[in-house]
Amino acid sequence: MDRAVILLSGGMDSSTLLFYVKRTLGVSGLHALSFVYGQKHARELAMARWQAEAAGVERHVEWVLSFPEGMADGSALTAPGLAVPDLAAIPESERRQPITYVPNRNMMFLSLAAAYAEAHGMVDVFYGAQTQDQYGYWDCTTDFVGKINDTLALNRKRPVRVHAPFAAMDKAEIVKRGQALGVDYGRTWSCYRGGEQPCGTCPSCVERDRALDGKQIVKQRKEEHESAFA
Amino acid sequence: MDRAVILLSGGMDSSTLLFYVKRTLGVSGLHALSFVYGQKHARELAMARWQAEAAGVERHVEWVLSFPEGMADGSALTAPGLAVPDLAAIPESERRQPITYVPNRNMMFLSLAAAYAEAHGMVDVFYGAQTQDQYGYWDCTTDFVGKINDTLALNRKRPVRVHAPFAAMDKAEIVKRGQALGVDYGRTWSCYRGGEQPCGTCPSCVERDRALDGKQIVKQRKEEHESAFA
Repeated sequence: MDRAVILLSGGMDSSTLLFYVKRTLGVSGLHALSFVYGQKHARELAMARWQAEAAGVERHVEWVLSFPEGMADGSALTAPGLAVPDLAAIPESERRQPITYVPNRNMMFLSLAAAYAEAHGMVDVFYGAQTQDQYGYWDCTTDFVGKINDTLALNRKRPVRVHAPFAAMDKAEIVKRGQALGVDYGRTWSCYRGGEQPCGTCPSCVERDRALDGKQIVKQRKEEHESAFA
Repeated sequence: MDRAVILLSGGMDSSTLLFYVKRTLGVSGLHALSFVYGQKHARELAMARWQAEAAGVERHVEWVLSFPEGMADGSALTAPGLAVPDLAAIPESERRQPITYVPNRNMMFLSLAAAYAEAHGMVDVFYGAQTQDQYGYWDCTTDFVGKINDTLALNRKRPVRVHAPFAAMDKAEIVKRGQALGVDYGRTWSCYRGGEQPCGTCPSCVERDRALDGKQIVKQRKEEHESAFA
């Protein structure tokens, strides 16, 4: 595989996948797509840029996906009026489709990525989905990826295929791989709240901390951050 | 069903579906989505507006979907440098995925429409796909709609469902239905070339003519057009 597309949010999973695809799989012509969709944690985009540059992608695209009025109102990731809750404040029963879920987001992203790939004569799209038992989204599962591929397989000329090599791994396993690949997790962003410093209590911060087995990286030094956003 | 989303291009099929859903199914709270994606035949959007108003939808959204540089280059529907061919000039062997195909377009549209529906608390999306034997796209087939629904069915909270009631009909049958519903086909746009008048020879014009069994409507009077675009 010489050329491929990758979804790159700037978080831990997709940044690890980026280095895995570039270094382990040796894909030279890699196009990374980062979506700008009104997420509160748009700080992840600066990290995506940094990682794309560090990995040496052929092209990094920041794709602005505009939502019609009212569409962002139901998710704490996009609605100004909805606070991101601490993980501890979300009842167990709601953790499999919580308030931080953005309706059908990953199907949108993968459809756009598949279109981009096909239009550029590529057939492979990499997606850093990973399944968390405790807190996870239906559009990050292996089932979901399978159904997306069943759909794309109907294409009569150039069926694109989505690969999610981390879909059955947990975050700690992914981080272990990434550390072996030299991924700089200080230059990834997880916090859903998107403040100057990671909050440490939102679902994404808690998962990050657990994966790193310690707080040394999620609580990044302020100067590190400042240089990342300079 | 009280509320639903419909994809409305401003062509014959989706305009007919609009009246079918509004009048025959009696859906009162209908949201119509028209995508602006750099199509040469953006004249269809004026028709979509006209039809949405005539049908009395609750909301009509023109959703601008921007494509990164280079993405529009491979389709005659979006690339300035690629001419839309006459249907007669397209070899039979290429008619099932011709140069007018926009990579993965309908999966993008349906993913966005499903997201819009879910975000607005709706579960039904209507799609005016119809299958042509001679000239058709993989992303207009009943198989395609089935696979999209298989994907959406994985949603843990509010699975959206795509309905394509015309998917097994041909265009002439659709027009017969539309005429009974009072659809004004003089206010629909088909021509892929998007000039001031329909060309009459591109694949979309030829299909339109065949469906109408005559040329009386595709060659609309100039004054009708002028008022539609006023």
